[in-house]
Amino acid sequence: MLDNPSYIIDTFFTIFAMTLIIFMVPGFAMLEAGLVRTKNVTSVLTVNVMIYAIASLSFLLIGYEYAFGSWEHQNSMNKYAFFLFQMAFVGKVVNIMSGGVSERSRILPLALFTIIVGAFIYPTIVNITWGANFLADTVLDISDMADLAGSTVIHSTGGWALLAAILIMGPRYGRYKKNGAIQVIPASNIPLVTLGAFLLWIGWFGFNGGSVGSIASKENADAVALTIMNTNTAGLVGAIVGWLMTYFRYKKFDITMILNGALGGLVAVTAGPDQYDIYTPMLIGAIGGALVVIFVPIFDKLKMDDPVGALSVHLINGIWGTLAVGIFVPDVSILTQLKGVIVVGAIVFPLSFAIIFTINKFFTLRAGDKEQQEGIDLTECGMEAYPEFKRSI
Amino acid sequence: MLDNPSYIIDTFFTIFAMTLIIFMVPGFAMLEAGLVRTKNVTSVLTVNVMIYAIASLSFLLIGYEYAFGSWEHQNSMNKYAFFLFQMAFVGKVVNIMSGGVSERSRILPLALFTIIVGAFIYPTIVNITWGANFLADTVLDISDMADLAGSTVIHSTGGWALLAAILIMGPRYGRYKKNGAIQVIPASNIPLVTLGAFLLWIGWFGFNGGSVGSIASKENADAVALTIMNTNTAGLVGAIVGWLMTYFRYKKFDITMILNGALGGLVAVTAGPDQYDIYTPMLIGAIGGALVVIFVPIFDKLKMDDPVGALSVHLINGIWGTLAVGIFVPDVSILTQLKGVIVVGAIVFPLSFAIIFTINKFFTLRAGDKEQQEGIDLTECGMEAYPEFKRSI
Amino acid sequence: MLDNPSYIIDTFFTIFAMTLIIFMVPGFAMLEAGLVRTKNVTSVLTVNVMIYAIASLSFLLIGYEYAFGSWEHQNSMNKYAFFLFQMAFVGKVVNIMSGGVSERSRILPLALFTIIVGAFIYPTIVNITWGANFLADTVLDISDMADLAGSTVIHSTGGWALLAAILIMGPRYGRYKKNGAIQVIPASNIPLVTLGAFLLWIGWFGFNGGSVGSIASKENADAVALTIMNTNTAGLVGAIVGWLMTYFRYKKFDITMILNGALGGLVAVTAGPDQYDIYTPMLIGAIGGALVVIFVPIFDKLKMDDPVGALSVHLINGIWGTLAVGIFVPDVSILTQLKGVIVVGAIVFPLSFAIIFTINKFFTLRAGDKEQQEGIDLTECGMEAYPEFKRSI
Repeated sequence: MLDNPSYIIDTFFTIFAMTLIIFMVPGFAMLEAGLVRTKNVTSVLTVNVMIYAIASLSFLLIGYEYAFGSWEHQNSMNKYAFFLFQMAFVGKVVNIMSGGVSERSRILPLALFTIIVGAFIYPTIVNITWGANFLADTVLDISDMADLAGSTVIHSTGGWALLAAILIMGPRYGRYKKNGAIQVIPASNIPLVTLGAFLLWIGWFGFNGGSVGSIASKENADAVALTIMNTNTAGLVGAIVGWLMTYFRYKKFDITMILNGALGGLVAVTAGPDQYDIYTPMLIGAIGGALVVIFVPIFDKLKMDDPVGALSVHLINGIWGTLAVGIFVPDVSILTQLKGVIVVGAIVFPLSFAIIFTINKFFTLRAGDKEQQEGIDLTECGMEAYPEFKRSI
Repeated sequence: MLDNPSYIIDTFFTIFAMTLIIFMVPGFAMLEAGLVRTKNVTSVLTVNVMIYAIASLSFLLIGYEYAFGSWEHQNSMNKYAFFLFQMAFVGKVVNIMSGGVSERSRILPLALFTIIVGAFIYPTIVNITWGANFLADTVLDISDMADLAGSTVIHSTGGWALLAAILIMGPRYGRYKKNGAIQVIPASNIPLVTLGAFLLWIGWFGFNGGSVGSIASKENADAVALTIMNTNTAGLVGAIVGWLMTYFRYKKFDITMILNGALGGLVAVTAGPDQYDIYTPMLIGAIGGALVVIFVPIFDKLKMDDPVGALSVHLINGIWGTLAVGIFVPDVSILTQLKGVIVVGAIVFPLSFAIIFTINKFFTLRAGDKEQQEGIDLTECGMEAYPEFKRSI
Repeated sequence: MLDNPSYIIDTFFTIFAMTLIIFMVPGFAMLEAGLVRTKNVTSVLTVNVMIYAIASLSFLLIGYEYAFGSWEHQNSMNKYAFFLFQMAFVGKVVNIMSGGVSERSRILPLALFTIIVGAFIYPTIVNITWGANFLADTVLDISDMADLAGSTVIHSTGGWALLAAILIMGPRYGRYKKNGAIQVIPASNIPLVTLGAFLLWIGWFGFNGGSVGSIASKENADAVALTIMNTNTAGLVGAIVGWLMTYFRYKKFDITMILNGALGGLVAVTAGPDQYDIYTPMLIGAIGGALVVIFVPIFDKLKMDDPVGALSVHLINGIWGTLAVGIFVPDVSILTQLKGVIVVGAIVFPLSFAIIFTINKFFTLRAGDKEQQEGIDLTECGMEAYPEFKRSI
């Protein structure tokens, strides 16, 4: 007979879930590489690779113990399996931020910010929510907030950092004309956008499913399956709502809005997929998809330039998803959820603002107008993404 | 000790298998996006995303209970894990059909047909084969047909629907000249074709392996491993036969035929990979690959225009694979297999024909000649797949 | 209760690990397709598909029993699961070799060499290391070498075969000018390079984690998790060192060196990830990344033309990684490790040289200069990778 069967199975299950999340690294990379212009694709890819390497290593060397108190925090499975699962989350926070400032951001200052997120900002938020909680006395305690896999801890954290970065950096060169017109910048590679979105979708099964923390009892196996079921459903309905809302307005099928609608639904369901029945995620995902379609033009009106729609997908839906648990789950207080949303915003936004502002003083974050016109691939990387293809723009 | 270890392990295993199948969503999307012309790539991708969203939601809301009788049909594992595994199959049926009519089909009528497949056509076939079987009295009973993972239930079902659609819609504009010549239309992006084919191949391990239904006994673990072994072998040999047959004729390596040969082998082995020794799938896969090479030009002679070779890969090999179990497995009657093939064809083909014919009356399925010349991406999606790359055609 | 729980769990785990390795098939294909010029992309992809099909089938029919003595070699899990895991390794050896001679090699002779690697060369090396060892009396015995997942058995084996091929075939047409200048040939598709590198990275988790051979005890689960932890860490640090070394020299971010640095770190850690603490892989990966940056220009100086950097990534780091276990693990003798490195080189290099030389006599391996100028896609495959995109070169 096996000794420690639950230890074995949970170690295996957590490795499986972690592996799915790692598919989100090429997922984000392909999504963003497809959404930006050809002349900025190498930079976007480089940033994505650097984020995974730097954020993960910072978390390994510093952030993890700060977040969870010790390497022995979790003893129901192998400690390194648990670490890897947590480590797979960190880069996502910076991915959300870096995606939203792409086509105009220089790489070195982003790399510096990534170190700070991996070693300090993200671990602070984890500490007061999922982690060791020794900071809970010094800040408002939000350890009671229901946030299974991080609608707030991951997605709105990344979203607040992005908001700070956009305010400091301003829009891409030429995006908002003096006469009030907005320059439409189409995605350069739709197959990559589609591939990236589906790698993210699949990664989400590991993200949310693995966050249940165990599969080694009937109760936990049921929670894992329900979580993945509900995660998927919110994505399906988010996609359909993204489709219908754009179709009725423009009579066209807008695949970037369909996919962003799906991602909005996935973010929104992430706070509580283990606690809903199988129909509630349809409503949560529908609102999630709708919020993306509604907020993308609003941010543009506010001249907050976000080439991939990350504010709408991650910040708005991170907030919506966290509140949704309070609305739909009787045992969860919406006030606690709201407090969690506010506390995280009140920590992450000013902290990120101050750090990005300081970095920007010493290492200018924004590429110059001329560099942006030529494309930042040449100035930052000295390498075009598709050097042999003739371009029409 | 664990209580319910087999429930836990089978829930985990089914989630693993389901996840592999979901990789087939980007798999089909990339394969088809690579095979069609640049001007139709966004449409093809949009259709693939829509199919996953719409077919899955239709199956969740209506089709699943119709197919399996109740949510409690399977109680050896978590019911939502079992649902997700079954749900992952549904879209494939429409993928097969939509791929074969790409470059000329409008999206909205395809979306309507997808709802009907997910809610009604596919569940009808599942009901009388793998499912609740309460329709077995009203139609010819084929619940005895050996079809582990759907050579008939998935692949020829999709193939029959495609045949109906091709007959109703006709070929792409300009494909068959008045003088009898055939316009050769090369694939626009071979890396995407290759990526897509391998995502499908990997997904097949989950499709066929997961269809064993359990891994939680020595006997079942052996059946799962044998199934994946044989699945892979048929793909290997299908690829090699696709290579040799085209190489000896043209003295060139035709990667699209090599990959379609592999897919043909994979479809052919799908009905009985748990029942063969490890050498039989070589023969089945070889014939599967050969059938693709033989039937692709035959369908072209018949002016049945199928840009991705889906009729040969899925319909012909779905039939071959189902009959093969009767030929190679002593306990399986070839007559029962033949009856299964015929009954499914006799249900799906006329039903699909009637539904597609009706949809076509109200929402024209075929894009106009001028739209096809310009590319349906502009008229359907208002968005090019690669707007910055200059095109030579 | 389950009977044979460890048999069940290890069969499942090995199938999981094998599946991750199969993602390395599209991983290598995308990496190489992105690194070579557009005019050679279809050939590179075709070679990758052929290698998987041919090497796997050769190993199934001949190589496996020669390597392991019998199909019953491993009886702690299902024998076909174990076979599939081993089979997933074989093609990698040829991938390493074929990648390094891409843009100038004809496909048919490569296919013949692949048969011999799968049936004979690779199984010989496995026989005297991980396998049946009945050759250990006739050659120097290296069955004591510590090489968990193949720094030597896979990576330097492939590297030695590549070295032989490069010596026989010579560089690409026009690469080294008469005046000593080197023609810079930029990668044609950076998104594919990035995608491919991450599919390889993820596959490595299965490669190294699965090589532990079991997860079905607390001790083994710990070894698997530690192995994956350390594998990932070496990749992270390899990427960072690849970044820093190129950045300080050129003030640019060179994503191909960052990714090759990561792959160098991954190769280097592969011999002993189960035996290190969690900090040692940082040093091993750092040196691994540095070796890539250092050796890529050295091989160019030696006019050993290797378009993907495979000699530096796989041969140099395969050697370094094998020696590293002797350096960092007290119980492992560095002399035994060195002996292993030398014996494998002394078998594989002359054997590969003789075979490639012979093949080259009958089926010229090197495409002619004019074919190389036009691109070997047209002469070998009759099919361009991106026929619709206008090219600037």
